[in-house]
Amino acid sequence: MTAHKKRLILICNDDGYYSPGIRALAEVAATYADVQIIAPDRQQSAVGHSITISTPLRANNVKMLNGMDAIAVNGTPADCIKLAHDKLMDRKPDLVLSGINHGSNAGINIIYSGTVSAATEATVLGYPAIAVSCNEFNEKADLSGCQEAAARMIEFVFKNGLPKGITLNINAPAGPLKGLKWTRQAESRYVEEYDGRMDPHNRPYFWMTGKFELLGKGEDLDVQTLNDGFGSVTPIQYDLTAHDILKTFKEIEI
Amino acid sequence: MTAHKKRLILICNDDGYYSPGIRALAEVAATYADVQIIAPDRQQSAVGHSITISTPLRANNVKMLNGMDAIAVNGTPADCIKLAHDKLMDRKPDLVLSGINHGSNAGINIIYSGTVSAATEATVLGYPAIAVSCNEFNEKADLSGCQEAAARMIEFVFKNGLPKGITLNINAPAGPLKGLKWTRQAESRYVEEYDGRMDPHNRPYFWMTGKFELLGKGEDLDVQTLNDGFGSVTPIQYDLTAHDILKTFKEIEI
Repeated sequence: MTAHKKRLILICNDDGYYSPGIRALAEVAATYADVQIIAPDRQQSAVGHSITISTPLRANNVKMLNGMDAIAVNGTPADCIKLAHDKLMDRKPDLVLSGINHGSNAGINIIYSGTVSAATEATVLGYPAIAVSCNEFNEKADLSGCQEAAARMIEFVFKNGLPKGITLNINAPAGPLKGLKWTRQAESRYVEEYDGRMDPHNRPYFWMTGKFELLGKGEDLDVQTLNDGFGSVTPIQYDLTAHDILKTFKEIEI
Repeated sequence: MTAHKKRLILICNDDGYYSPGIRALAEVAATYADVQIIAPDRQQSAVGHSITISTPLRANNVKMLNGMDAIAVNGTPADCIKLAHDKLMDRKPDLVLSGINHGSNAGINIIYSGTVSAATEATVLGYPAIAVSCNEFNEKADLSGCQEAAARMIEFVFKNGLPKGITLNINAPAGPLKGLKWTRQAESRYVEEYDGRMDPHNRPYFWMTGKFELLGKGEDLDVQTLNDGFGSVTPIQYDLTAHDILKTFKEIEI
């Protein structure tokens, strides 16, 4: 079998190419396919779907701590995917993975997530894509359950494909996987978001902080599923149109 | 009538508080309500739904070129709305406006848009919110049609309210308004995205560029409506769950 007959998986994240999470994901992916890692050269958390238009991007060959080769890009997760697609890959990937993020991307966090945005960008460009996040910020967390969740959904996508415009968003607790459930994005928000302080020159400044608040109720919410100790898989879309509301609004002249 | 009985509109954007677009929007808003402007202190285009967590935010009182008072924040559009909500406002706004952006935010551009993210963040926090963008990058463009579109939709929201979780995304051509239509986000993408060059030290770098490509078809697409010379209003949501797909997926064991 020639190398070109083997499947290719592109891997990105938002914690930077040196994070334990991306190594854990790459190691799972390597059991299924050839792997190409193209990821930010530094931490890019909470960048949402940012893209870099006012400064040029650089791409450098680097070695990960587990010895795997990677390309480090001085941009956001979405930049990495766009540049990979347009310039950095000799052949197109069969699947794009993003993660494993250190910290969950469930509920309202989805809209701030660089990890999810890399997967979404891949979906926009026509690739099947999966984002994977661990419900634990500690970089030493046991990612074996997240790895198992990723493996199961890689197999799912290779078997079933994904509908056009759909990205899979996986979250799982640290430790062994208790099980995996189909979920929806939980209605949630942050409260008391800023810690106001005075600097040594007596000028105010504000640190982002805030408590996560789950507003929705239901066993099939991503946040609730995590709280119950299970892994969650939410199919998400980048068509933001509220189609039902649009139907109602069309009755009203504007 | 005391000042507190008058409605209050909070205004943000992603081009920075000094842009002509935000002045044009503030002037329209001032005919309906008291106005509070809290906007980025510099250009923040294509930041998507970024939030700033690793550096502190500052908020400074500034004067706009039209003499109106504003607060300039060293953060993203979403940061401005979060900080406004939590720390910077004495009373809560009745409506949040974002724009007028110089450049359209229709089709796939919605997911990269800082302008839209400010309005979406306001929706997350429970405020009715509208994003307004002009289909023209030139800062000297005639924004009168965009102003009229904004005025009509301000009246619409004050009369009808907005359903929970729904943001209005307005785009309009430069020049007078030919009409305003309810629309949906057009399937679209960018192609040939990067211009690869060599620096004076013979190292490669990449500039983001690319051509916008409309993929969807239909008179009710936001991009098509703009191309036809009309203003577009798309109701958008931040629940990214693909509910129909989820229903199908739930039949499959994972």
